[in-house]
Amino acid sequence: MDFFDVINNRRSVRRYTETKVPDEIIRKALDAALKAPNSSNMQAWEFYWVKSAENKSALVDACLFQGTARQASQLIVVVSRIDTWKRNRNLLIQQMQKDAPINGQIKDYYYKIIPFLYTQDPFGILGTLKYLILNTVGLFRPIFRRPAHRSDLFEVVTKSAALACENFMLAIAAQGFGSCPMEGFDEHRVKKILKLNYQSRVVMVISVGETAPDGIFGPQYRIDPKLVVHEV
Amino acid sequence: MDFFDVINNRRSVRRYTETKVPDEIIRKALDAALKAPNSSNMQAWEFYWVKSAENKSALVDACLFQGTARQASQLIVVVSRIDTWKRNRNLLIQQMQKDAPINGQIKDYYYKIIPFLYTQDPFGILGTLKYLILNTVGLFRPIFRRPAHRSDLFEVVTKSAALACENFMLAIAAQGFGSCPMEGFDEHRVKKILKLNYQSRVVMVISVGETAPDGIFGPQYRIDPKLVVHEV
Repeated sequence: MDFFDVINNRRSVRRYTETKVPDEIIRKALDAALKAPNSSNMQAWEFYWVKSAENKSALVDACLFQGTARQASQLIVVVSRIDTWKRNRNLLIQQMQKDAPINGQIKDYYYKIIPFLYTQDPFGILGTLKYLILNTVGLFRPIFRRPAHRSDLFEVVTKSAALACENFMLAIAAQGFGSCPMEGFDEHRVKKILKLNYQSRVVMVISVGETAPDGIFGPQYRIDPKLVVHEV
Repeated sequence: MDFFDVINNRRSVRRYTETKVPDEIIRKALDAALKAPNSSNMQAWEFYWVKSAENKSALVDACLFQGTARQASQLIVVVSRIDTWKRNRNLLIQQMQKDAPINGQIKDYYYKIIPFLYTQDPFGILGTLKYLILNTVGLFRPIFRRPAHRSDLFEVVTKSAALACENFMLAIAAQGFGSCPMEGFDEHRVKKILKLNYQSRVVMVISVGETAPDGIFGPQYRIDPKLVVHEV
């Protein structure tokens, strides 16, 4: 399908038919998701493809029994994590070294800057320290200010996961199916279903199905672009 | 361009040629960005298209003088806000009412739930209160747990802005140009250039240009999908 047709036709779908969405459709969309750009290529995301009837039913409850979850043929939970960066960094360096020896600048980035950005303690002491260091240096010269606190780090990994979510949803649309991103869910219960720890965030639950004739509620309302696009 | 060709060909571009990117290319990509799904359709995003030579040069400095910023023909700063929801909600309701009278459920959602989610005070008192309420109710039945704190709210609006960023970058690729999402910037200085207040976040600075022959650094490294895609 033409790229701009996909952009123009993707809408959040609230009602699905009973048609099953083949697994290949999801696989292709997950493959597209993994091609999204992401912060320092740390790939701090996870995609839970909920298939067992028991997990599905628990997830629908945790999604506050929304119609789009209830009627979905497939459900995907996108998660961001602040505890997989070390594993991922090591795997990434291995891959890169197979192609060519990595230079000092790259080594410094992955073994000094990345640990500085991603290391957190449960009490937020490191976060406060980083905040003070970065903002003191920042008085004298440009420097990145965040992630300092733990919440900043969650923002970084969640942002990257969101880029992947958009690829996923567009890829579903490109294959003729519908999807809906949900943020109205009980994160505590979703985490329990997926056995996720406190170092993870549930970014979005995405429902997928065949769009019902009345599956899209009205036109796509947007405020005047002049209010949000500024030439400066 | 075919949708999956765009997904497969989009890469983060580190070096650009001196070719100028026409404004129409940016306009079309911004239009695609505004078509992204977003939380409760609050459209809590802003796109600063940096055009003046003075602002551009200051922005390049604030982006730590990265090559991809320095060589870019066009620079866009994507911002998320927690202080535009009321204006946007009112405009949205006006638009919807033009088409059909809105029912009680929608009214409740926009005039009770949305203010509950989006109202914050500078001291975090409301955030703590919301956290306690949501997690107490959550003991008994499924309920959304976040946004409670101010940092949660920033996560919500930043997540939506990231979906828009992905549409923007893909739309640039679909038109034959290159882009690079930057998170390595001095947020304090970027905010100063754009005169942004403490209720906003700089989500990403995106450079756009014609990809130089050596503009993409190596293959797209990804860890084994089995490590991040889980069927449950």
